[in-house]
Amino acid sequence: MAKITSRSPLAPKGFPDLPLVKGVRFATVAAGVRYQGRTDVMLAVLDHGTSVAGVFTKSATRSAPVLDCQAKLGGAPDGPAAILVNSGNSNAFTGHYGQTSVQEITDAVARVSGVASERVFTASTGVIGEPLAHDRIVQKLDELNDGLNVDRIKDAAEAIMTTDTFAKGSGAQIELDGHTVTIAGIAKGSGMIAPDMATMLVYIFTDAIVAQDRLQALLSELADKTFNCITVDSDTSTSDSLMLCATGASGVDAGDSPAFAEALHDVMLDIAHQVVRDGEGATKFVEIHVTGAASDADAKTHGMAIANSPLVKTAVAGEDPNWGRVVMAIGKSGAAADRDLLSIRFGETLVAENGWVSPDYREEDAAAHMKGQSLMIAVDLGLGEGKATVWTCDLTHGYIDINADYRS
Amino acid sequence: MAKITSRSPLAPKGFPDLPLVKGVRFATVAAGVRYQGRTDVMLAVLDHGTSVAGVFTKSATRSAPVLDCQAKLGGAPDGPAAILVNSGNSNAFTGHYGQTSVQEITDAVARVSGVASERVFTASTGVIGEPLAHDRIVQKLDELNDGLNVDRIKDAAEAIMTTDTFAKGSGAQIELDGHTVTIAGIAKGSGMIAPDMATMLVYIFTDAIVAQDRLQALLSELADKTFNCITVDSDTSTSDSLMLCATGASGVDAGDSPAFAEALHDVMLDIAHQVVRDGEGATKFVEIHVTGAASDADAKTHGMAIANSPLVKTAVAGEDPNWGRVVMAIGKSGAAADRDLLSIRFGETLVAENGWVSPDYREEDAAAHMKGQSLMIAVDLGLGEGKATVWTCDLTHGYIDINADYRS
Repeated sequence: MAKITSRSPLAPKGFPDLPLVKGVRFATVAAGVRYQGRTDVMLAVLDHGTSVAGVFTKSATRSAPVLDCQAKLGGAPDGPAAILVNSGNSNAFTGHYGQTSVQEITDAVARVSGVASERVFTASTGVIGEPLAHDRIVQKLDELNDGLNVDRIKDAAEAIMTTDTFAKGSGAQIELDGHTVTIAGIAKGSGMIAPDMATMLVYIFTDAIVAQDRLQALLSELADKTFNCITVDSDTSTSDSLMLCATGASGVDAGDSPAFAEALHDVMLDIAHQVVRDGEGATKFVEIHVTGAASDADAKTHGMAIANSPLVKTAVAGEDPNWGRVVMAIGKSGAAADRDLLSIRFGETLVAENGWVSPDYREEDAAAHMKGQSLMIAVDLGLGEGKATVWTCDLTHGYIDINADYRS
Repeated sequence: MAKITSRSPLAPKGFPDLPLVKGVRFATVAAGVRYQGRTDVMLAVLDHGTSVAGVFTKSATRSAPVLDCQAKLGGAPDGPAAILVNSGNSNAFTGHYGQTSVQEITDAVARVSGVASERVFTASTGVIGEPLAHDRIVQKLDELNDGLNVDRIKDAAEAIMTTDTFAKGSGAQIELDGHTVTIAGIAKGSGMIAPDMATMLVYIFTDAIVAQDRLQALLSELADKTFNCITVDSDTSTSDSLMLCATGASGVDAGDSPAFAEALHDVMLDIAHQVVRDGEGATKFVEIHVTGAASDADAKTHGMAIANSPLVKTAVAGEDPNWGRVVMAIGKSGAAADRDLLSIRFGETLVAENGWVSPDYREEDAAAHMKGQSLMIAVDLGLGEGKATVWTCDLTHGYIDINADYRS
């Protein structure tokens, strides 16, 4: 294994004090899938009638658990549901054996918890291409089921970590129709490490009532504005999974509530930012704000081209307000741009406009901004109303250290 | 400026002994555009009737010289032609001032050399966003013109270097219809360094007779198989320029000659490989060979996804035969792939097949291959007849050193 890095300098102070979500219970166990001396399996069991939505990696080489979840999504929200996640082994690129492992695990969860196997969703994260020792998980299922409790979400966040340097979670409570509706989510991700890959797993729970179709539409829409707007290194895991479960236990239908959608968006964005903040080797958190594009899609294309450019990311690491590299990234993105209409800001400092460096630009102003830990690069294309915001981190020696280390 | 790195470990032993191309003369001078104590301007003057073809960056923010060259290409091949290149300043993102600089330089070249200004092509490479001191070039033009000589192509290769660690050139001679036809080319590129960008400039000369339309078609076709199949870090310069000039001085029409096309291809590929071998921080030269794709375009998409993946490139740097990352890159490329039909080789070693690690795979075999300086990653998709080969280098601490260094 590559070296385990210490807690990211961009990490929040600690795991948040998440509100309890009625209708979902958690348990974790140390099954020894690969790691020793830590929990590595989490089980979440959701009450009868829970709506389940999901968004998964688009990879053409996605893992067996992802394929299984996708096949099950959209089924009738009858009876309880369950999610089982293991860390240490991703069960990816494991041939037909991978499907067998998924089947063995889901059957066992169904057996001990009384959840129909079509409502058991799984995920695996860790080493790729090695058979998953599913027996180790199966033999712990009674223990897991006995330990289920509504207040164990933090334990769940810790059990799914691989090389994350901190456990990730976010929550919110809002008042709707005189009742409290709660949202809480956990995630792991962006601690990629040889021989693993950048897998992001996110599980969000709410006690709101939201019909399944509406829940799926909401999740897909908000994923595009949050998790699909972050990038660490442009690589895509074969296991990325994002699931949203609405237990309905609050008794409040929030399907059409803008306040609920906004609170959910904020929880998702908070978690997405935490994933970037745990990017391998990251020392800077960067918001890239694109306006004036020909369309929102063009704005996102430009934003991601800037966010993924190794030359931009190394300039950020070097605290260099190198706007020429931003111009380069815009130029190569493929989306519409006019060199002479562009303007670029680093923080509050106008750097370039009218196809050239701004006449009032003083490099020391932009350089001062680059010394911070949270940076803003703002680009206006001057073409239309399209806008997008994306988030990334810098590219440092730490990334090379983590990913170029030989497996042992 | 960032630190100048020593000669790339992947560099050839020395500059090749290039054959003389009849009909083109070179001169260089130290104009002090930015660098001191070295030549920084090269002038090439081409005989009456030379056909000129070019391929340029597709960047939407391309530089003033690129725009000027593109506007001039395709004009009648009457009279002589000239190419002037300066290093030290890229004249990119310099607003309308950039166009003025191009005009001043082309007018001056026309004045001293007798070449019509519509047949004077320029390029600039170096710092971005600063006005080009074109006066320093203009005042050296008489000296340049007086120094023109057919045997100075190596001097030309040296004058256009920015942070290249070695001068790049390649040549060939073939017999056609009892006469000798000569090709020789020079290039700079891939030594990107703050605050510059990855600019690749390539100039190839031949004394064959090739009609201008045919020359352009040939150049475009061969560029797709050579320069468009290499990548160092996926970033695209605003100044990339590739020009091919056929003086006709050999008296041999080679426009329809497969042998000429093949020799030209080999010269272009050799130069393209030299650019990769001078990739910033590169310690490994990697050939990625994709077969069995649904189409040639799909094969190239897969190849470039592998070649540009930071996770693959860091694994190569770490001499880690991490085939899971190759699977990941194929999965994210967007081109057709079937996880269970894939096979992957590192060198001669079959690593993965049938959606899983090969039963005979021994990691020590692949690991031994990864210790070499020239590596091969071969992927067969098992879907069709599409194939492509692309070339890249590894991603190392050297890349971060060069690009994260603050400008001073």
